[in-house]
Amino acid sequence: MGKAYDIMAATCPSRVVLNRIGARWSIFVVTALAEDTMRFTELKQYVQGITPKALTETLRALEQDGLVLREAYDENPPRVEYRLSPLGRSLLVPLQGVREWAESHVPEILDAQDRWDVRTP
Amino acid sequence: MGKAYDIMAATCPSRVVLNRIGARWSIFVVTALAEDTMRFTELKQYVQGITPKALTETLRALEQDGLVLREAYDENPPRVEYRLSPLGRSLLVPLQGVREWAESHVPEILDAQDRWDVRTP
Repeated sequence: MGKAYDIMAATCPSRVVLNRIGARWSIFVVTALAEDTMRFTELKQYVQGITPKALTETLRALEQDGLVLREAYDENPPRVEYRLSPLGRSLLVPLQGVREWAESHVPEILDAQDRWDVRTP
Repeated sequence: MGKAYDIMAATCPSRVVLNRIGARWSIFVVTALAEDTMRFTELKQYVQGITPKALTETLRALEQDGLVLREAYDENPPRVEYRLSPLGRSLLVPLQGVREWAESHVPEILDAQDRWDVRTP
């Protein structure tokens, strides 16, 4: 009511936004870029387990949404760097909250999963 | 260093936790249950566009992780209700931040996508 955008509405563009943020690797790449500008190979090393294809696609989507800026320097060999836009930087605060929650509630969730396994043979 | 769990580490269980939170529909179902206990059909109505299969799978995963509690009442017809556990409730705060970010930055992201479309014919 009176709210411009509502993620619960199937056709609301805020849902598209949320699904992009929630995409498999977005939070990892945005969080990695919190620290510093990075090159592709640095990002790949920082976000352990991401494939080059997944990293390319994630960077492309984040660039498309205006969250990440790509800067190509005309050097030899060419240098390409990625950094957060001001919009991308504004996403860090809520993502940091989710990250901290995940990192601090691991034991409780593992316990719950164990209890579930015992209950369902 | 010294941090027990790190989402950037490929084998860290916090990554599993984060991927579960970030799963396609989790944020919608957890947010829906913020308000009140709900039945399956109520949830399906509230989270617009979710299929019964996706809702079943999401509820199962959330229950398995200890975020959602399922209560079956021995009535005729049988009544099943879902609600957040205290752990699930603790997730509301960070998720609310992400939801608010998504709902409040829609115009900027749509603008960025438009500019991208113009740039890439």
